[in-house]
Amino acid sequence: MGARGVSGGRLTVVGLGPGADAQMTPEARAAVEAADALFGYLPYLARLPERAGQSRHASDNREELQRAGTALDAAAAGSNVAMVSGGDPGVFAMAAAVCEAIEKGPPAWRALDVAVVPGVTAMLAVAARAGAPLGHDFCAISLSDNLKPWELVEKRLRLAAEAGFVIALYNPVSRARPWQLGRAFDLLRETLPADVPVVFGRAAGRADEHITVTPLAEARSNLADMATCIIIGSAASRVVAREGLPPLVYAPRSAEAAR
Amino acid sequence: MGARGVSGGRLTVVGLGPGADAQMTPEARAAVEAADALFGYLPYLARLPERAGQSRHASDNREELQRAGTALDAAAAGSNVAMVSGGDPGVFAMAAAVCEAIEKGPPAWRALDVAVVPGVTAMLAVAARAGAPLGHDFCAISLSDNLKPWELVEKRLRLAAEAGFVIALYNPVSRARPWQLGRAFDLLRETLPADVPVVFGRAAGRADEHITVTPLAEARSNLADMATCIIIGSAASRVVAREGLPPLVYAPRSAEAAR
Repeated sequence: MGARGVSGGRLTVVGLGPGADAQMTPEARAAVEAADALFGYLPYLARLPERAGQSRHASDNREELQRAGTALDAAAAGSNVAMVSGGDPGVFAMAAAVCEAIEKGPPAWRALDVAVVPGVTAMLAVAARAGAPLGHDFCAISLSDNLKPWELVEKRLRLAAEAGFVIALYNPVSRARPWQLGRAFDLLRETLPADVPVVFGRAAGRADEHITVTPLAEARSNLADMATCIIIGSAASRVVAREGLPPLVYAPRSAEAAR
Repeated sequence: MGARGVSGGRLTVVGLGPGADAQMTPEARAAVEAADALFGYLPYLARLPERAGQSRHASDNREELQRAGTALDAAAAGSNVAMVSGGDPGVFAMAAAVCEAIEKGPPAWRALDVAVVPGVTAMLAVAARAGAPLGHDFCAISLSDNLKPWELVEKRLRLAAEAGFVIALYNPVSRARPWQLGRAFDLLRETLPADVPVVFGRAAGRADEHITVTPLAEARSNLADMATCIIIGSAASRVVAREGLPPLVYAPRSAEAAR
């Protein structure tokens, strides 16, 4: 996105992938290794080996704009800064906060060398373990209503179901968000068939991976926590039963108009 | 997705990422290296080094189901088969065709060891080069009407715009699909503001990368070819101008209900 700024500093927003080391790209690893300073939410920093001469600045998962500003300040002062996110940094993660901080911040930040390194986002890792549930048109919706009204989430869910999109849900539940996922399932049950498959995916590709497939009729919010990515099929989604193996869930490449 | 089948063979559907070697995960590289036989669309196979003892089975980009069946046959006969896709194999690519072939094929295929290795899909690579245009709720739509009626594409575009989704378009144009992208822009111009940013991304992360940002009012189909991924912003999308640098396009984390 940019040439090296006048300060010599730079900020790279890096996607570490869904969790397994083998799912982190070489580009992401190189960006982390080259950095003088790492910024990010503590569980993501904890995935990375410590290195002499590289400082670490852990934060909680709130205050994204403030975290972005602190990292931009460090870059403006000449540091090679890596801001790390799980998955892909452009999907419900830090890249948008960095862009927003640049827009709202001092003019000097616009001259900084800023880059984004993409990663495998959670829905792709979960989909891979379930088959190919995102094989046709789909959408991704964050259930967090910290920054948007819940009515807008409901509107998007209704329109997504009407469109026949498969729906990937990020940030499905948290302590501050206990009822929203259940409400989303109830809303979708009003329009989608009861047997639409729902994939709950947690820690895909890691040792503690947990993937569950259940019909929409039986989908409950207690099957998810804040680290779960949920994929809700469309009326066209298929489930292939396999003896002694998990089912394959997929979206047919061919779609019918009559949905 | 499965334990090793009785034949000893296996099929791994592998996402090679958007094109740059540094954006291919170690997991994908290992799956390719371990395979006895590689199947895939020729341009994807061409990215991979040849290796003694590993056969190659190139195909054109049609006949996905037939290609999947041939690869499943080879796996059932005991080969360790890798079926390669660009980007992520679960997004408008071969994983869904493999699942469909298994559902429709001989019962023995359901017992096969089948796995999917995710990758960085094109929209994430393009988004990274533009800023964070997918930073909030978004959808992905294939413009190919080979397997779905064009009316369904139009319906989905209209509903996506109504929902306020950022829209990523895959397979925007081809010789057999010359007018669809222009029609999609016309349709979206009916409901979205004229200054909504549109990102055209080709070969993101590669030497021949080409990223263009243009307002929706000026978006034309001749800015794209079949290898382009297009990201159409929502009314909330922001463009941050930078002197001497490409603009940053991003989706604000905070959304308004009134869209």
